[in-house]
Amino acid sequence: MSKQIITISREFGSGGRLIGRRLADDLGIPYYDKELLSRISEESGFSKEMMEEAEMKAKNSFFYSLSSAFGTGDSGPDSLSLNERFFLAQFDTIRKIADEGSCVIVGRCADYVLRGIPGATNIFIYAEKGDKIKRAVEEYNVPEKDVKKVMNDTDKARANYYNYHTGRKWGDPVNYNLCIDSGYISIDNIVKLIKDYLELKNER
Amino acid sequence: MSKQIITISREFGSGGRLIGRRLADDLGIPYYDKELLSRISEESGFSKEMMEEAEMKAKNSFFYSLSSAFGTGDSGPDSLSLNERFFLAQFDTIRKIADEGSCVIVGRCADYVLRGIPGATNIFIYAEKGDKIKRAVEEYNVPEKDVKKVMNDTDKARANYYNYHTGRKWGDPVNYNLCIDSGYISIDNIVKLIKDYLELKNER
Repeated sequence: MSKQIITISREFGSGGRLIGRRLADDLGIPYYDKELLSRISEESGFSKEMMEEAEMKAKNSFFYSLSSAFGTGDSGPDSLSLNERFFLAQFDTIRKIADEGSCVIVGRCADYVLRGIPGATNIFIYAEKGDKIKRAVEEYNVPEKDVKKVMNDTDKARANYYNYHTGRKWGDPVNYNLCIDSGYISIDNIVKLIKDYLELKNER
Repeated sequence: MSKQIITISREFGSGGRLIGRRLADDLGIPYYDKELLSRISEESGFSKEMMEEAEMKAKNSFFYSLSSAFGTGDSGPDSLSLNERFFLAQFDTIRKIADEGSCVIVGRCADYVLRGIPGATNIFIYAEKGDKIKRAVEEYNVPEKDVKKVMNDTDKARANYYNYHTGRKWGDPVNYNLCIDSGYISIDNIVKLIKDYLELKNER
């Protein structure tokens, strides 16, 4: 198979991360999720913890926009547009990784960063609320009493972070080549379907 | 293959109708698009033209809501909730058709009408604006000078009609099992992908 860059965007509880990992294993290509943060950290000098914190700050859209535009975060005067600097570091590393060869990248606006790059395929994994809650409790071990809040906060942060930096709308089909509801088909079969898609797309 | 009810929702210019037709032919099952209107017309007594006109009226969301709620359309005093009566006639006929056996149904809120019915698979076909314009001009023979307006009006009518009657958002992935951008993969291969999906879904 020719060079394949696959980005996976996913709602919390949809199993998107697992799908990405299995797909990368099946195709025998590198997988980047937390691995991406480590690499950005190596290349930019920002700590992983700082970046993760910045991403989660986005759950409040208003303050995220404010601190991105004016650097009025809680990290002192050096934080001028820190969010923007994180995003740019991420941008550079994702581009480099895609240059190196086939890979699967989960999250972090990779679909936007790699738009227009030949061979890039953008996938969105989502599900109905009940299915996501079930998976989060049973498979991610999120306590039942917290699951709705964790799900809402995580997806809100993802959406705001994405919308702010890309000017697009997170989860809008037009950003992705293929969107799959993981509530109706098993994880293993979603991986098969994506592999079928890659073959059929390349046949064009 | 067991009973398959496939609904296809589609943006104007995405090729969704053609995909539905080929899929039905390939699977050897009935296809309903204009055929659905004829059948609703037979069963309800409404004329096809009246129904098509009612659907296109939805391009103005405000007036559509008004005429649906209060029947203040331009068809005289008999139009009391005519839009609602059209929708209910459509609802009944779609349910009957799904009861009869496997089929492909294009448009007309069929995904919503058949929600929760075992064996129903809801698909959304979309594409980037440029790809849709190209297809509309080259394949649907829409004059280039009119294409943007026709596309906007048609999709606005579809969205308003859907949103009004279902309380959902047209084109939101969560209404569909699978969403496919037709700009990156040929129509024939989309049909193959949907057939793969049906097999993989049933394996569950």
